[in-house]
Amino acid sequence: MNLAWAVERMKARALSQKDRPLAAIVDILKQEAIAICEEDIAANRRIGHFGQKLLADGDKVLTHCNAGALATAGFGTALGVIYAATEEGKRIHVYAAETRPRLQGASLTAWELQKHGIEVTVITDTMVASLMKRGGVGKVIVGADRIAMNGDVANKIGTYGVALMAHYHRIPFYVAAPISTIDPQMNNGSQIPIEERDPREVTHIGRHQITPDQVDVINPSFDVTPAELVTAIITDRGIARAPFGETVKTLLSLP
Amino acid sequence: MNLAWAVERMKARALSQKDRPLAAIVDILKQEAIAICEEDIAANRRIGHFGQKLLADGDKVLTHCNAGALATAGFGTALGVIYAATEEGKRIHVYAAETRPRLQGASLTAWELQKHGIEVTVITDTMVASLMKRGGVGKVIVGADRIAMNGDVANKIGTYGVALMAHYHRIPFYVAAPISTIDPQMNNGSQIPIEERDPREVTHIGRHQITPDQVDVINPSFDVTPAELVTAIITDRGIARAPFGETVKTLLSLP
Repeated sequence: MNLAWAVERMKARALSQKDRPLAAIVDILKQEAIAICEEDIAANRRIGHFGQKLLADGDKVLTHCNAGALATAGFGTALGVIYAATEEGKRIHVYAAETRPRLQGASLTAWELQKHGIEVTVITDTMVASLMKRGGVGKVIVGADRIAMNGDVANKIGTYGVALMAHYHRIPFYVAAPISTIDPQMNNGSQIPIEERDPREVTHIGRHQITPDQVDVINPSFDVTPAELVTAIITDRGIARAPFGETVKTLLSLP
Repeated sequence: MNLAWAVERMKARALSQKDRPLAAIVDILKQEAIAICEEDIAANRRIGHFGQKLLADGDKVLTHCNAGALATAGFGTALGVIYAATEEGKRIHVYAAETRPRLQGASLTAWELQKHGIEVTVITDTMVASLMKRGGVGKVIVGADRIAMNGDVANKIGTYGVALMAHYHRIPFYVAAPISTIDPQMNNGSQIPIEERDPREVTHIGRHQITPDQVDVINPSFDVTPAELVTAIITDRGIARAPFGETVKTLLSLP
C-alpha cells in the first residue's frame, strides 16, 4: 500500500465531513481506515491471483526487503504472489536478500516465510550475483513504494542493483504492487524524491558499531529501478508488461 | 599476496633444505618469510606506481572489501594504487562498500583510509548501484585472491555484483594484484574452488543475531568475476588490458 496515498485519502474524507461534530468525524475516519485495510487485503489477494500464474512448481525466487504481510495490511504484495502460488500447490524456494542497512529481508521476510512453512534461505546482498550465475535464482519478485507512469520503480535501496544483476543473467524481474502505487502525476522516476535516513543505520547494527568513529556515510532509503529492467508489474487489476507507457495507462483506466 | 602461493614457496624452501639441522631450517624459513614480506611490499609499490596513472585528481573511486596494508604485507594492492595516487598529489575520494558478511570495507578499509588522511565514505553493499547511477563513482578498484589465465578474477563475495553494476554504468573496473596472484595452471575461473564459511557470519553481526532461529543461510567466501567485466589488471609488472589471454601471458613471461 502506498502510505502517502492512504494519508491523502484519509485527509480528503475528513475534509469532506468537516462541518460535522468531531466525534462523528472520528467515527467516519475509523470506518475509512477499516475500509482501506480491507481493500488492501483484497487488492493483495488479487495481486497474488494474477502473479502466481508467473510462478511454476519448483521455482527459486529471490526477493529483496519485505513486501509481505508485515509491510502491508495482511497478505503482502511480492510475498502475496508466493503465498498464492503455494496455495495452488506449487512448491517455491525463496532466497531473501538481507537488505542492509535495516535487514528487513534477514528478519521480517525470513520470519514470515518460516511461519508460512515456505522454504527460505537468507543471503547477504553481496551474494545475489554469484547465486544468479550458478543458476540459483529463476525469478525475482519485489514490492514497490512508488511507480511512475513510464514503469520506473522506487523501492528499498538495493532493488536497482538486484534488477541490474537479474537483467545481466536474463532472469525475469517482477514488481508486485497495488494500482494505488502507480502515481499518475509522475511521468518518470527522476521525479521521485529519495529520503536520506539516520547515518546510525549504516554505522551500527543493533548496538554494535561496525565502522570507525566519525566516518562519513550516506543512507538513501530508496533507489529507482528504470523501467527497462522491469519485466512486468503485477497489480490488483492485472499484469502490465514492458514496454510500460501504454500497458500502465490501460490498467489505470480499468474500472 | 596469494597466500597459497606463499605457503607453497615456504614449503619448497623447507624441502630443499630438509637434510640440515632443524634450527638451521627454522632460520632459513624465517629469512624466506622476511624476503616474501619485503618482496610483497616492493611489488605493492610497483602496483601503485603503474596503477596510479589510471587515476586523475578529483576521482571518486569505489572499492570492495579490503585490499590495503592490513590485508597485504604493508602497502596494499587496490588501496596501494590510491595511496600512490595521493603521493602524486592527486586528491581521491574513496567509497568503501561495507562488504557483508564480514564487513571488511566498513571496518578495515575505512579505518586504514582515515589513518592515511584520505576522504572515505562507507556505504552498504545495497547502495552501490544507485551511487553509480547518480555519477558518484568514476572508477572501481578491487584486489584479487586468484586470477585465471583468461582474466577471470576470484575475489571477496560481492565483487562480481560490483563488476556487473560498473559494466552497466560504463565505469572502468580495475583489479590490482601482484603477478603471483595469476595462476598459470588455471585456464579460467570455473576451476577456482569457492570455500563455504561459517553460517554464523551471516546470521550474526558481533553478538547480535539478525535472522530468525534455525533459518537456512549460505556463506560462499568468494565469487568469480568473468574477464569480460574487467577493464584492466594492474600488476607489479605492468598493466594487462582486456582482452586478457595474450596480455596476461606477456606479463608472466617478463623477467
